[in-house]
Amino acid sequence: MKGIFYGIGVGPGDPELLTVKAVNIIKGADVIITPRTEKQTNSIAFSIAEEYIQEKTEILPLVFPMVKCPETLNSAWENNQKIILDLLEQGKKVVFLTLGDPMLYSTYIYILKELKKTDCNIETIPGIPAFAAIASRLNYPLTEGDDILSIVPATNPKEALEKAFAESDNLVLMKVYKNYEQIIQMLKDYNYIDSAVMISNCGLENEEIVYDLREHEKEKPKYLSTILARKAK
Amino acid sequence: MKGIFYGIGVGPGDPELLTVKAVNIIKGADVIITPRTEKQTNSIAFSIAEEYIQEKTEILPLVFPMVKCPETLNSAWENNQKIILDLLEQGKKVVFLTLGDPMLYSTYIYILKELKKTDCNIETIPGIPAFAAIASRLNYPLTEGDDILSIVPATNPKEALEKAFAESDNLVLMKVYKNYEQIIQMLKDYNYIDSAVMISNCGLENEEIVYDLREHEKEKPKYLSTILARKAK
Repeated sequence: MKGIFYGIGVGPGDPELLTVKAVNIIKGADVIITPRTEKQTNSIAFSIAEEYIQEKTEILPLVFPMVKCPETLNSAWENNQKIILDLLEQGKKVVFLTLGDPMLYSTYIYILKELKKTDCNIETIPGIPAFAAIASRLNYPLTEGDDILSIVPATNPKEALEKAFAESDNLVLMKVYKNYEQIIQMLKDYNYIDSAVMISNCGLENEEIVYDLREHEKEKPKYLSTILARKAK
Repeated sequence: MKGIFYGIGVGPGDPELLTVKAVNIIKGADVIITPRTEKQTNSIAFSIAEEYIQEKTEILPLVFPMVKCPETLNSAWENNQKIILDLLEQGKKVVFLTLGDPMLYSTYIYILKELKKTDCNIETIPGIPAFAAIASRLNYPLTEGDDILSIVPATNPKEALEKAFAESDNLVLMKVYKNYEQIIQMLKDYNYIDSAVMISNCGLENEEIVYDLREHEKEKPKYLSTILARKAK
């Protein structure tokens, strides 16, 4: 197959946080796939990259259902794969955009795994992970010396969370919305609370930063909130 | 103080992996500080960013000794800080370049902490972390679903390493050079070995990728080697 499939990380939100490489590939793309769910018609990754997309480039919305049922996913994917492979057969440069970094918690990973079973050319372009942008935004060092950093979705079972809190020097806690009170309690129990910072909607107009989590433990956080914390030594 | 101090992550090596924001700030910089050690005169971060630096920009090499002795570090720093604050007083845009991401294991963190004690304006620009570039280069997904990812310098004591291996779903092991045999044994003991990949000098001419670590367990790896691994489920 002559074409190339590019998986591009567009970073966390600011169009200036795309890499030069990502911008160059987007500018030269023949087709840009915008993933959409059945309900949601606009793609956030697309809006972030929009200013770099040239007029000659074809925009191709494909439905990727946000479901955990493998059969629904597979049948939607079969159809999408046919379309993608056909474009690559024609020698096209096909771009798939994804939020943050493509190798961290992205829809792209599913597509990558499926496309790897074929003989098409795949190139993945890294993006700034949201947690790195948050740390820089707050001037909050994540790791020094031999520190161990764990990236932890707070949606994990309590036992897994406890192990991560015990073992790490530094934590990035994502999706703290659901079990916020439990997370605050663990930050206290494992000596992270004094350094913990919570940020919601980083870099956006409605950004909110909470430095003293002890005083905000009873408030429900915003939906897209991340906590950075380091263990007191 | 009217000037701004920018800490910029230039990513892992490819000049195309700087962000658009980093490039724009570098192009508009009045002064670019190139950190150098007493022995080493050229800065890797500087060579990565070099093509974006304009002629009008002053290049200012400052010695940051790579020592763990706080007194030597502090006395070198006092001198550097005077120079930096003086430039900021004059309203200059002063840029400090750092490899990878500024908030992960960088010299910049020391400078940031010291400058935060003053009233100067500091802006940190995130960069692509080396491990993200490696994962994309290898098309190697780091995390899916609720996976916990730990970034682990292999120079940690055995006990800390064992906890990280036990607790995580996915590992990025940095600096595996020193205790390579121990690391391979732990990858086996904790069920990571089958998926483990080692890469040296990622993206450079002398890049080396090792997929089957079982067959290479007796060979000494290259100095700048990183292992990505996920636990068999």
